[in-house]
Amino acid sequence: MKATGIIVEHNPFHNGHLYHIKESRKKTAADIIIAVMSGNFLQRGEPALVNKWTRTEMALKAGVDIVIELPYVFATAQASDFARGSIDLLEAIGCDDFCFGSEEGSIEPFAHSYEVITTHQEDYQNSIKQYMKLGLSYPKALNEAYTEITSNSEINFVDLSKPNNILGYHYLEAAYQINAHIKPVTIQRVVANYHDDVEHSQSIASATGIRKAIFDDGSIEALANFMPQTSLEHLLNWKDSIGVFGSWQQFWPLLRFTIIRSSVKELATYAEVTEGIEHLIYEAAKKCETFEEFMACVKSKRYTWTRIQRMLTHIYTGFTWEALHSHKKPTYIRVLGMTHNGQKYLNHKKKNLSLPLVSRVAAIKDSLLDLDIHASDLYHLGLQSNKIKQPAGSDYRNPPIII
Amino acid sequence: MKATGIIVEHNPFHNGHLYHIKESRKKTAADIIIAVMSGNFLQRGEPALVNKWTRTEMALKAGVDIVIELPYVFATAQASDFARGSIDLLEAIGCDDFCFGSEEGSIEPFAHSYEVITTHQEDYQNSIKQYMKLGLSYPKALNEAYTEITSNSEINFVDLSKPNNILGYHYLEAAYQINAHIKPVTIQRVVANYHDDVEHSQSIASATGIRKAIFDDGSIEALANFMPQTSLEHLLNWKDSIGVFGSWQQFWPLLRFTIIRSSVKELATYAEVTEGIEHLIYEAAKKCETFEEFMACVKSKRYTWTRIQRMLTHIYTGFTWEALHSHKKPTYIRVLGMTHNGQKYLNHKKKNLSLPLVSRVAAIKDSLLDLDIHASDLYHLGLQSNKIKQPAGSDYRNPPIII
Repeated sequence: MKATGIIVEHNPFHNGHLYHIKESRKKTAADIIIAVMSGNFLQRGEPALVNKWTRTEMALKAGVDIVIELPYVFATAQASDFARGSIDLLEAIGCDDFCFGSEEGSIEPFAHSYEVITTHQEDYQNSIKQYMKLGLSYPKALNEAYTEITSNSEINFVDLSKPNNILGYHYLEAAYQINAHIKPVTIQRVVANYHDDVEHSQSIASATGIRKAIFDDGSIEALANFMPQTSLEHLLNWKDSIGVFGSWQQFWPLLRFTIIRSSVKELATYAEVTEGIEHLIYEAAKKCETFEEFMACVKSKRYTWTRIQRMLTHIYTGFTWEALHSHKKPTYIRVLGMTHNGQKYLNHKKKNLSLPLVSRVAAIKDSLLDLDIHASDLYHLGLQSNKIKQPAGSDYRNPPIII
Repeated sequence: MKATGIIVEHNPFHNGHLYHIKESRKKTAADIIIAVMSGNFLQRGEPALVNKWTRTEMALKAGVDIVIELPYVFATAQASDFARGSIDLLEAIGCDDFCFGSEEGSIEPFAHSYEVITTHQEDYQNSIKQYMKLGLSYPKALNEAYTEITSNSEINFVDLSKPNNILGYHYLEAAYQINAHIKPVTIQRVVANYHDDVEHSQSIASATGIRKAIFDDGSIEALANFMPQTSLEHLLNWKDSIGVFGSWQQFWPLLRFTIIRSSVKELATYAEVTEGIEHLIYEAAKKCETFEEFMACVKSKRYTWTRIQRMLTHIYTGFTWEALHSHKKPTYIRVLGMTHNGQKYLNHKKKNLSLPLVSRVAAIKDSLLDLDIHASDLYHLGLQSNKIKQPAGSDYRNPPIII
């Protein structure tokens, strides 16, 4: 059975994701699609709109065969660590290929870029540092350095100013660095750009646009054109049963309390909080009544929005630099859900997996897994919905979803 | 000017407090009544019904001349440290007497008890330890040991099974231990016992009974018989402007989040959390949806309700054993409010005070004061009232109240 991996957040699942699954299956002639999916906190440093169980069901009903969880440590990390954790897991579960969507659409330019960067590693890193000293954020500095290194050339490099190309580059880099068996494949993303709003005449919108539509208009039914019917039903069902969607706006009272309860010194112990920004975070939390006001106070040229949100995620969950530094690689494969086809694949493979397969979290003791369980508990508390009975401990109660 | 100190919480102010003020003034022929008052967290380990500013106004309008704040560290401590902090402050501000209400009503039995206990200190302490080993809570063990030491005697000892006698004993002990200039005086408490419910035919009810009436019935007007009109108006005004009263029920979502966000190991670093109870606290917070359920899970013969609530207060505010051990004595006199008479007294005395007088918190840097400011911020956040603008930083904005 040929298995292809995809790296997803599905926040929420939409037609672009459906296209990605179908094209990946077609392009790699896959029997099985395995998605490594972020849990309840995402790479942009945000709580997920709906929890990982609901997002798993969405994925399974739309053609994914197995969903495994990208542990908190990697799911909320900067792009290179996010990519590394994801590729490690897809390699460990025995995928032959991984397929990502990119603005570029073909794999060779990625390989060329990887080669030129690794060949001129030192110059490249120095150049990034120089640009950062000039006050540029890391992504911007990287982009400038990259433009330098890839100018005056006949070779076709990938355009690393595009967000999905950047992520794709990191996937490919991770695979090459660990000498993975797994092969990189890319397909061209269609229509929606990363941050595009929902245009009601199209059938593919970005997840960001969809989230915006949900929070601004509150009308989920209007999104029927942009996602499979099953996904829409899950969203509607979540709204009926939970009443609120995950967002920093929703989590703000708890986040704010947590910041103000901490000392400035303690804030600096949390992962990614660095260079004195803890003072700014502390004072802004005291002063600002809403999350929007808070971000307006904290945001500067120095840090991207995403980077700040990741700091907030770690403050919220109590995830320290120390914890970050002591977890470098995935240590288990946690199955969130599978189809019967996926189950067959796992039965066939399970003796040869390079990491232990976890379906019941109570069965193993692992500090990386403890962090996932912890983050899940705090996510469900953050929703502050009195419709959720027992917001803590859901990871112990939920077995993998099988459809 | 002769000054008499009283030690109060006024949670909320009622006719019993009014009687205490009037009798104290009469019995000690005082020109000035100075109240040392707990801030926003109280000795029973609870958030105050209304904040310290409102309680200060209640006190000033009912005959107190100066209100000073008992710092968080002492206000939320076990009885002996609570008493020590209070007496230190009343001594420092130059009171001649302090007057407390007791079931006993005359001071000699307190003095006799102090003498017999200090004379047989070692036996007494050993006896307490023995009873605790048998599974008794500290107050119960103390009471048994005390009964032993005061039996078979012609001398009139104070009955230390009565809550106000116990507190009074600790005041007297604190004054004797520091060789205070200040002299102990007691008056008999009238009518209401500590926990008595409101009986609508009487004019004095206990503060516990009054709080119960507020939370159970929600009718403040019905309390008109039990408190001065000015106090009633302050309660009504608070209800109109803030909407909710301070209680663990109200603070529970934040307390629960804070417990679950902490590791069990971290919980054990907070003051008074000891002997493995952190495990019980952590598991109960995960399981229990309400504060009542939580307390039912955590409560055991080993710890009093009050003791557990003090642990929760320290977890809520992030107050550690380390912070507890590094703050042994008051280091300032913080004025929350005064009458013009009180102001005259302070002007007259201020050169001779043994501790610095603080009216603007921004003017001094003191770690004990930082803890008060911190606790205040978290108290106002705990109310979770969107009617409070700027819940953090109120200590910086509020000057002493002068009426």
